[in-house]
Amino acid sequence: MAIDFKQDILAPVAQDFAAMDQFINEGISSKVALVMSVSKHVVEAGGKRMRPIMCLLAAYACGETNLKHAQKLAAIIEMLHTATLVHDDVVDESGLRRGRPTANATWNNQTAVLVGDFLIARAFDLLVDLDNMILLKDFSTGTCEIAEGEVLQLQAQHQPDTTEDIYLQIIHGKTSRLFELATEGAAILAGKPEYREPLRRFAGHFGNAFQIIDDILDYTSDADTLGKNIGDDLMEGKPTLPLIAAMQNTQGEQRDLIRRSIATGGTSQLEQVIAIVQNSGALDYCHKRATEETERALQALEILPESTYRQALVNLTRLALDRIQ
Amino acid sequence: MAIDFKQDILAPVAQDFAAMDQFINEGISSKVALVMSVSKHVVEAGGKRMRPIMCLLAAYACGETNLKHAQKLAAIIEMLHTATLVHDDVVDESGLRRGRPTANATWNNQTAVLVGDFLIARAFDLLVDLDNMILLKDFSTGTCEIAEGEVLQLQAQHQPDTTEDIYLQIIHGKTSRLFELATEGAAILAGKPEYREPLRRFAGHFGNAFQIIDDILDYTSDADTLGKNIGDDLMEGKPTLPLIAAMQNTQGEQRDLIRRSIATGGTSQLEQVIAIVQNSGALDYCHKRATEETERALQALEILPESTYRQALVNLTRLALDRIQ
Repeated sequence: MAIDFKQDILAPVAQDFAAMDQFINEGISSKVALVMSVSKHVVEAGGKRMRPIMCLLAAYACGETNLKHAQKLAAIIEMLHTATLVHDDVVDESGLRRGRPTANATWNNQTAVLVGDFLIARAFDLLVDLDNMILLKDFSTGTCEIAEGEVLQLQAQHQPDTTEDIYLQIIHGKTSRLFELATEGAAILAGKPEYREPLRRFAGHFGNAFQIIDDILDYTSDADTLGKNIGDDLMEGKPTLPLIAAMQNTQGEQRDLIRRSIATGGTSQLEQVIAIVQNSGALDYCHKRATEETERALQALEILPESTYRQALVNLTRLALDRIQ
Repeated sequence: MAIDFKQDILAPVAQDFAAMDQFINEGISSKVALVMSVSKHVVEAGGKRMRPIMCLLAAYACGETNLKHAQKLAAIIEMLHTATLVHDDVVDESGLRRGRPTANATWNNQTAVLVGDFLIARAFDLLVDLDNMILLKDFSTGTCEIAEGEVLQLQAQHQPDTTEDIYLQIIHGKTSRLFELATEGAAILAGKPEYREPLRRFAGHFGNAFQIIDDILDYTSDADTLGKNIGDDLMEGKPTLPLIAAMQNTQGEQRDLIRRSIATGGTSQLEQVIAIVQNSGALDYCHKRATEETERALQALEILPESTYRQALVNLTRLALDRIQ
């Protein structure tokens, strides 16, 4: 039976959303008008709020009873996520995100850089209020690693020699690490250190699966339903798993074509690249890897006590994989 | 007698520099090669390290006996300062800083944005290690206000109606606030809450004087000796105090010319603007304001016990003012 996002994932934490949004709105309030309008614009462009949902579910799955604390941590996670998106859009020179003009497009790069800085600082400011030194250390280390992952991705751009191992390091930093903070942070907050490692493993593998699926969708035809255009990654010369696997599975002219496309970027050879990715078995390999990561994520959850919250995390993990079924 | 930077300011903390630099180098170490080379480039471009010197002097003036702690806080201050410079250079599209190519010019905007993010995160990571929640709250709030000040500056660009009050808010955020963190943070670190407010007042007024002097130098002829070019602020349409005062002191055509120059930016009317700034008494007013801020800074220091450290802070404050004598 198909998983329903609202009923099977969101429902157990739906009543937390108003309070969480309130924390976010308080967080982005500023005496500087421009700070507020840009922050509001980017926060409202947020998607399904998957990261804060995961944070809330993880906190309640760990037995957290202080709703305000859980909602505040979820708000912090969303603000950090928003800050990275704002800077990512500057880095990628994106004009649209989820069909809305980005901050850099609506205002300019300058404003986007500085408001991103403000959101990072404010997220830490709210985190300090939770008065938990272990949580602070987890987040300060984690945000370093997120930035490192983003730079690693930049460093790998146009590099056809990027290995699957480097690819995994990149997606861990740019995607999985924040999921880890959302769930491991929830365990710390709930005072359940025994769930830190399982929830971190869960989120790490979930994030890997999530990003691999995202990277698959960049080369398959129904991608535009997600607000992402086919060929975006190729355009920027990003050596994602579909291309790395395609280079592994081919040789001669086909392999050279993929290598050249990564090195130069652009989409003039997009059709040929898609054909090679699909016919070489690269997509099958990516599916297999995403499925493996999903299974490992689900396995890690088993140590948590059964609850509707744990079940919702399971459902979310399965729904993410369903995007490529 | 003229104040000598090395002998009258640096000497009492000169022996701390090697250890502080070591903390900075450990702080910027990363498994991602590009993170390290960019961080190294920007840290080495640092100037006289005035902020960490002030932090060390304030800590010892408060009686801090843990040298490692003081050196670490000073390193954190310098890393935060470096991070803001990296992002400022992206925002201002600067190609050179102190005669060296900026990070955005040497690499690109993308790299500079992300490495700046890394430096902010790493500074917080080191701060968490100092294990002082009051210090953390001070810094997390302060870095929000720094970002807000930078955005306020952006918001005021090309706005001839910017008042002296808004100007003071801008320079407090972009300049004085980090000085405040350096010295108030030192008092917190030393466990001397009674010196927090005096040291914050000292640094706030010092920072204001410092920035007003910087803004004066943008319209006076010996500015290029400081690596700053005459007319940089006018080029960007920044309504700094010399222009605000000039608009106060003039009317009719002269006032309109200043207003237009702020609104449009550019230096095509630089000579006329300089002449108006100099002849209208605007520079005299700026000198007066810088002197007042300097006096308030020195006054605030008086509550601290006499020591070579306090004296060095006095000397630093006087030397900063000497730049326009």
